[in-house]
Amino acid sequence: MSPGFTPETRALILTVSDSSFQGSREDLSGPLVADLLQQAGLTAIARQVVPDELETIATALRRGAEAADLVLTTGGTGLAPRDVTPEATRMVCERIVDGLAERMRSAGAFQTPLAALSRSICGTVGTTLILNLPGSPRGAESSLQAVLPLLPHALDLLQGKTSHDSREASRQKVK
Amino acid sequence: MSPGFTPETRALILTVSDSSFQGSREDLSGPLVADLLQQAGLTAIARQVVPDELETIATALRRGAEAADLVLTTGGTGLAPRDVTPEATRMVCERIVDGLAERMRSAGAFQTPLAALSRSICGTVGTTLILNLPGSPRGAESSLQAVLPLLPHALDLLQGKTSHDSREASRQKVK
Amino acid sequence: MSPGFTPETRALILTVSDSSFQGSREDLSGPLVADLLQQAGLTAIARQVVPDELETIATALRRGAEAADLVLTTGGTGLAPRDVTPEATRMVCERIVDGLAERMRSAGAFQTPLAALSRSICGTVGTTLILNLPGSPRGAESSLQAVLPLLPHALDLLQGKTSHDSREASRQKVK
Repeated sequence: MSPGFTPETRALILTVSDSSFQGSREDLSGPLVADLLQQAGLTAIARQVVPDELETIATALRRGAEAADLVLTTGGTGLAPRDVTPEATRMVCERIVDGLAERMRSAGAFQTPLAALSRSICGTVGTTLILNLPGSPRGAESSLQAVLPLLPHALDLLQGKTSHDSREASRQKVK
Repeated sequence: MSPGFTPETRALILTVSDSSFQGSREDLSGPLVADLLQQAGLTAIARQVVPDELETIATALRRGAEAADLVLTTGGTGLAPRDVTPEATRMVCERIVDGLAERMRSAGAFQTPLAALSRSICGTVGTTLILNLPGSPRGAESSLQAVLPLLPHALDLLQGKTSHDSREASRQKVK
Repeated sequence: MSPGFTPETRALILTVSDSSFQGSREDLSGPLVADLLQQAGLTAIARQVVPDELETIATALRRGAEAADLVLTTGGTGLAPRDVTPEATRMVCERIVDGLAERMRSAGAFQTPLAALSRSICGTVGTTLILNLPGSPRGAESSLQAVLPLLPHALDLLQGKTSHDSREASRQKVK
């Protein structure tokens, strides 16, 4: 596993919440996720808040993927009528990484059986990794901690820096 | 977590089985699932038996979702040539809830490694939750017990009764 | 559970790797998987090596499914830019078996948390079962061992030999 994030790694935290977007509720999970990423060595962290609208989320994810290596959403993964973050993520992603979502839910189950209701998915678009985190601060933290140690290596792989033949893979990517 | 089902909660149990539909085999799982739901406090429980036909199952699911808050299928989730309940469910559902299916299989694995062959999926259509259960009585019971305590809360969320701001969410839903 | 593979069971091992296809890296996982299948009683085992090209993999899977009862891929399940084995598998499969992939990753997690980065999926096309295994020998072995005891029964089910009414199911299949 890679020792940690490279200094150039850019992250975007996308809070998906009608009430936070409208300003009627404070966004607690976005700042919390930012803190956890900083503690993990990331410095280039942007934040954005969008409402629970499928197209708005998808557009934010696409733009985020152009600007960042890692996009973490928080919110909109549950069963409430307007929760559509996973659907927007699936629309945008080229490849799905089921194992990361499974790992986040498995870790969450130690806290609460309600973790099974998180519909989080993870996937890639270009060389960017997108992860859905739950909207509650506790759920977001538990999910992120469950996969955080894997993310530097995941980004290395995505960017073609494979352990066995990093040069060949980098060359392929440049083509 | 919600204390239990509300008295108005309506459930449909859909047995998917060629042989039960033809009357050549007794449907054991349907009545068993009904018993478990009754013990959990549900009273409005309907039952229906359909053959393993994709379109027939999908139609029954759609109609069930109009009439019930919770639709539980039993049967047709395995690898037999005519097992297509998950495919019908995916056709009908607007949103998939991977975590519930993962939890059902995890619980099943304590009984038998064959639980991994259940292709059950769970999802939502409108404000209705659909769950696939295996066809064997033992598998259906194990799967249902694994998620039953979560269902009242899941239905609350689906119907816009969120814990943090139930009024706002209910208003959104009415629009 | 079935005692073991029938003598007629035919397997194809499909190594997906640009470098093995080009001959610049020895394929270690393909032969290892073949050994494990032989130890499990299979004798009709074919092997093929293809590059990490979506259409090439899909074509090999389709042809493999016509000739074999069990198709095991190794490689191309990770996050590297050219890893597209799961996408090719999803294109070809009629039905997905999430539980087998979940079980492979759960078993892998005991070895390394990086198992969560395997995007392996499993599915069926006609009466053939397709499983994606990771490309590393260790990952391929761990994943295969996690599900190997289930495969004879899975193939029985796929071929309509169900435990409760094998005759009826076989007749259905012949139609």
